[in-house]
Amino acid sequence: VSAVRLARRAALLAPTLPVTTGRIAFDSGHASPALLPDLTAEAARALSAHRAEVLQYAPRAGLPAMRAWIAAHTTADGAAIGPDDVLVTNGAKHALELVCRLLLDEGDAVVVTAPTYFSAIPIIRSFGAEFLEVGQDREGLDVEALGALLARRRAAGQPPPRFLYNVPDYHNPTGITMTGARREALVTLARAAGLLLVEDSPYRLVRFEGEPLPTLKALAPDIVLQLGTFSKLLAPGLRVGWVAAPAPLVARMAQLKTDAGSCPLTQRTILEFCEGGRLAGHTASVQATYRAQRDRMAAALRRELPDADFDLPLGGYYLWLTLPDEFDGEVVERLAREAGVSPLAGSRFFARPDADHPRHHLRLAFSHATPAEIEEGVALLGAVCRTAALAR
Amino acid sequence: VSAVRLARRAALLAPTLPVTTGRIAFDSGHASPALLPDLTAEAARALSAHRAEVLQYAPRAGLPAMRAWIAAHTTADGAAIGPDDVLVTNGAKHALELVCRLLLDEGDAVVVTAPTYFSAIPIIRSFGAEFLEVGQDREGLDVEALGALLARRRAAGQPPPRFLYNVPDYHNPTGITMTGARREALVTLARAAGLLLVEDSPYRLVRFEGEPLPTLKALAPDIVLQLGTFSKLLAPGLRVGWVAAPAPLVARMAQLKTDAGSCPLTQRTILEFCEGGRLAGHTASVQATYRAQRDRMAAALRRELPDADFDLPLGGYYLWLTLPDEFDGEVVERLAREAGVSPLAGSRFFARPDADHPRHHLRLAFSHATPAEIEEGVALLGAVCRTAALAR
Repeated sequence: VSAVRLARRAALLAPTLPVTTGRIAFDSGHASPALLPDLTAEAARALSAHRAEVLQYAPRAGLPAMRAWIAAHTTADGAAIGPDDVLVTNGAKHALELVCRLLLDEGDAVVVTAPTYFSAIPIIRSFGAEFLEVGQDREGLDVEALGALLARRRAAGQPPPRFLYNVPDYHNPTGITMTGARREALVTLARAAGLLLVEDSPYRLVRFEGEPLPTLKALAPDIVLQLGTFSKLLAPGLRVGWVAAPAPLVARMAQLKTDAGSCPLTQRTILEFCEGGRLAGHTASVQATYRAQRDRMAAALRRELPDADFDLPLGGYYLWLTLPDEFDGEVVERLAREAGVSPLAGSRFFARPDADHPRHHLRLAFSHATPAEIEEGVALLGAVCRTAALAR
Repeated sequence: VSAVRLARRAALLAPTLPVTTGRIAFDSGHASPALLPDLTAEAARALSAHRAEVLQYAPRAGLPAMRAWIAAHTTADGAAIGPDDVLVTNGAKHALELVCRLLLDEGDAVVVTAPTYFSAIPIIRSFGAEFLEVGQDREGLDVEALGALLARRRAAGQPPPRFLYNVPDYHNPTGITMTGARREALVTLARAAGLLLVEDSPYRLVRFEGEPLPTLKALAPDIVLQLGTFSKLLAPGLRVGWVAAPAPLVARMAQLKTDAGSCPLTQRTILEFCEGGRLAGHTASVQATYRAQRDRMAAALRRELPDADFDLPLGGYYLWLTLPDEFDGEVVERLAREAGVSPLAGSRFFARPDADHPRHHLRLAFSHATPAEIEEGVALLGAVCRTAALAR
């Protein structure tokens, strides 16, 4: 029995999320029920005009038409790639798992932001990797600190980290958008250091304001593995995501898939939706709805929690709340759940349990709750915080 | 860099199947195009009456209704289990991967038949397991030989194998059905030896004749992890399978899933099909069609390859052909592909490359080719074998 493997397995088995949510879900990455599209016609076309394709085994790397659509979509977003540079997966988390299977050996180092997306943590950890944390400010990942970290490792004779994982657009959990200058600096540093970049980009089109900045993939297609998904744009339940990477890496990851190909029925249903011309209108609805829900939550927070601080995210699903220093996010989360609303303690989003992290943050999702629930949930949260402050 | 991990990765990256098939596909586990059901109405109901369920994230262990249906289906087949004993997966291969993630550490031994299902080989190997092979005869796995193998390991102070993987019904690739007496003997031996049994059962309902024998799961539910799938009964492209195992193991495997839950849309579409009463009629069609195709292939083989030998499989998709001793299945496979038909060489189905295995077998799928293609493909195969014999 390998001790390393047992440790990895234990890490993966550790629960990452509470099983129950509050009556009002601020913890969830679910979509707004009002935005779930009617896919009846698309599925019917997939199951009739494409019956043999959608009911037989599909190519492991994805339907050719799906790979071509994703390549064109990525190319239109500034990174010129072809269908061979795309691997279709069962959602973006599955894409991250395949990236890890491809790249990681036990003991390899992986750089993440502090905080980072909590579902990425157990996946990366299960491959026996060591986390290196880098901070961020309002402009995104601290590239200067990353440079210093890489220099320290070089000086100490340590190998470079195997890859850096980040969410440059509407970062999860902080909502920060990396500036153009920071993106440029990051790819320049990564190229010089031989560091691969894993760009997780689920919220790219869930944009509320401002022009889109170049993706890392657009800036350096040869060293960036970009993860994408239809979950946040169309519907989480479809379980279709992808990784865009240089073709030789895609070919190897396709062989690491043990699923006999991702489901062709859902791939073709999505293609019918996108090629049928509904995507642009749906994207506009997604942006308008979540922008309004973000604004509703922000206004309620300013009213109910005037001592808390936050930056308005320019896109995505989440708002990162900074409570006054003396608050413990885990205590607030527990009390809030008892009161019927479920924020997530910021402490869940740090990869290194041994490091000293701030404990006074909460992540609040504005995606799933209705506007009325957002009002009620923030009011409940305000009451909980006032009670907690009085009890100190 | 871990040498073991690199070796494992190389093993997984080794291709298991040729990329191109012949014009007439005898290599494929695809379904007969004539049997692909019209699921338009089922998908429409799933996407309308159950829209929120099928488009949001689903529980990692599967939709509760799907778990309940599989539990009832398994119970009706003789193994009384509940929904908590069922984990829904992205096909049966994904179920096997999760079983391996749960049970295997590097260096563990796993028992398989010689030959065994080729897609299981790289999955198990990728976890660093060592294969132990056991032979079979017309009654199925040689339980006496297994007992001797386990005794030798005990005597040598070696730990017992972590599990045994087998396909008792319509074995892949040999088509053998394990007799009732062998099944009883296997579970008795396994229980005494502390050996878990992984029963892969994709063809259970693809039965052509005879009464079904008890599954291993029915005989010993506490030590059997049973893999099931809708691929061979309904449609391969749906990518919905399962593992039926004791509830605590199911709970742990659910946490090992990194896919954020298997696709609820395909789960609900299948439920609509099964609960709508279409499964029994469809199963009868599947059985009648594949029985006729098996008979067609058998008659053609007796006519075109009178020197080759085979047993008529009682179910499943495949016929295991024994060529005269002097033939090399890999040569025949290559020549046959050039001629336009694609059998699979029997040598692909042995887990240990270092052992001395027979080389004069072919696996022929009668599932995908049409009756006319079966006639033409067997005639081509006969011509290839006559040419190969003359060239010796």
